[in-house]
Amino acid sequence: MDTEEKLELLKRKPVEEVVTEEELREIVQKDEPVGYIGYAPTGKMHIGHFTTVRKIADFLKAGFKFKILIADIHAELDVEKTPRELLEARTEWYTEAIKGMIEAAGADLDKVEIVRGSDYQHDKEYQRGYMHLMENATVTRAERASSEVVRHDDSMKASGILYPFMQIMDCVALGADVAYAGVDQRRIYMLGRETLPKIGEEKVTCVFSELLPGLGGGKMSSSVKGSKVGVTDDPEAVKEKIEDAYCPAGDLEDNIVLQYVENLLFPLLEDRDEEFLIERPEKYGGDLSYRNYGELEEDFLSGELHPQDLKKALGNKLAKILEPVRKRFEGRDLTEKAYS
Amino acid sequence: MDTEEKLELLKRKPVEEVVTEEELREIVQKDEPVGYIGYAPTGKMHIGHFTTVRKIADFLKAGFKFKILIADIHAELDVEKTPRELLEARTEWYTEAIKGMIEAAGADLDKVEIVRGSDYQHDKEYQRGYMHLMENATVTRAERASSEVVRHDDSMKASGILYPFMQIMDCVALGADVAYAGVDQRRIYMLGRETLPKIGEEKVTCVFSELLPGLGGGKMSSSVKGSKVGVTDDPEAVKEKIEDAYCPAGDLEDNIVLQYVENLLFPLLEDRDEEFLIERPEKYGGDLSYRNYGELEEDFLSGELHPQDLKKALGNKLAKILEPVRKRFEGRDLTEKAYS
Repeated sequence: MDTEEKLELLKRKPVEEVVTEEELREIVQKDEPVGYIGYAPTGKMHIGHFTTVRKIADFLKAGFKFKILIADIHAELDVEKTPRELLEARTEWYTEAIKGMIEAAGADLDKVEIVRGSDYQHDKEYQRGYMHLMENATVTRAERASSEVVRHDDSMKASGILYPFMQIMDCVALGADVAYAGVDQRRIYMLGRETLPKIGEEKVTCVFSELLPGLGGGKMSSSVKGSKVGVTDDPEAVKEKIEDAYCPAGDLEDNIVLQYVENLLFPLLEDRDEEFLIERPEKYGGDLSYRNYGELEEDFLSGELHPQDLKKALGNKLAKILEPVRKRFEGRDLTEKAYS
Repeated sequence: MDTEEKLELLKRKPVEEVVTEEELREIVQKDEPVGYIGYAPTGKMHIGHFTTVRKIADFLKAGFKFKILIADIHAELDVEKTPRELLEARTEWYTEAIKGMIEAAGADLDKVEIVRGSDYQHDKEYQRGYMHLMENATVTRAERASSEVVRHDDSMKASGILYPFMQIMDCVALGADVAYAGVDQRRIYMLGRETLPKIGEEKVTCVFSELLPGLGGGKMSSSVKGSKVGVTDDPEAVKEKIEDAYCPAGDLEDNIVLQYVENLLFPLLEDRDEEFLIERPEKYGGDLSYRNYGELEEDFLSGELHPQDLKKALGNKLAKILEPVRKRFEGRDLTEKAYS
């Protein structure tokens, strides 16, 4: 794969911004560059997470070594989301779910390193790092940086000021050339790009993914119960939740189902070199098959493809794709321990 | 010494507030309670510091074990005051100066433990402690708490939010029953009393000292050059600076010289069971001698004691009292390394 092909792959959905492309171009030419993403083990992981985890397969194909941080200490700093006594169980839950998603994405689990924050975030050098970063930013700037990640009003906790600087130090501690994250983390990493050089560290290059909304509409948040498709949901639940999802005929606006088809399903299918087959009785026009999202969107807009047929096909496909995740949880009490 | 005598001694000058006296009464009845004070190694120590260090002798007499924290990491968080490359040298300077002041106060150096922040502030349990404290206070509350200690405006650094929580954790890490500090630290420790019980720790009892102004007037700050009497100043410099100090005849208002006579000199003399002898030529009325501050103040107000005579006597006495500090610096390059 040449440099431009690697760049195209890395910029593929669900990525919406690279800061900067010039930096990324240099990085992909390095010998085994390092990418990382962090997940704080709070609520159960859902297909919004799967959309970002799937992307890791692209990084691996582009020659990256990839580290996944299970940010247990970050979760500890946000105690309203994760009670302390559940932290260890949730960290285990996340570890298994992420492994399953990597497998579901068809990537090689051996090429991914799963790290816990507590493995290194108590180290002296790490601590000194965030302290020095904190000297190089104002409180106001730090509040703004974490405003999309933690509660940001008069009741914002002091721990919310520590949070972004730890995250910025993660880039250093993990030796990351690229920080890959949801676009809700943008302000934190942009603060990192500003402050890291002030403490003598290189600024990290960023790849930001679109945040996919919950199937019920609105921003998908792992901490709010809703109709989100959990990555460990059984096949019937996956299908039902997708059947219930918002997908107005002929309408792209806020069409969550189409967003998943574009950002999650087609990248998965492309990797497998598969078509998206939509089965339909002969009397309604017979089966449909798509090689890319563009063709599908066209048919959906024209009315040729009906929401019910699309949702049924997507539900069946996703339920099948998520099988490696479910398998890892079968016969184990991981969920019971972490979320009861 | 009985409980009430101990309390009286602890409440002696320069103490201006105890929070709470009921708690302190219980503490002095314990078997070897622990007190602590922290100094961040920033600017050179002066007689304002000596006034607080002298008080440690009272704690020892009241049966306390006393720990003095040289808060090197705190100084590191306030890089505008202490450049990083001077931190080690300043920590050594503070250590020697404090030892000298303890000796000058006539206290037993063996009963005092001098600790550096870096000895334990990188420990995991300490870090988790301040993180948990930070979850239990808002940013606004933390900003207010540190407002008298670090710069508090739009340019306040994010490190200023970490600062108070580290200080609160020091009480836990040092096993302190009592935090003794200048009254400028009041807001931090009051935040500590509020938040420590929330993380399952006992709230610390506080003894706050009056802050003595610089001899030139205004709040005495170790980071501003002025006419402050440094604890390592040679005798001539001590005398000259006190000669130049503000001491309007018959006037108590803002009379800095009288404040030092009350808060520093008389406690020192009482411990030595000495009188304050003011030598005066026979033609101006001959020598004067005082056993306590009240008598002296009376003569000063009536005009019987003239500022020039008072300042001369105070300068001579202080220069002599500070000898143990000077001795520790003689023939060494401590000051050159730390403050050049």
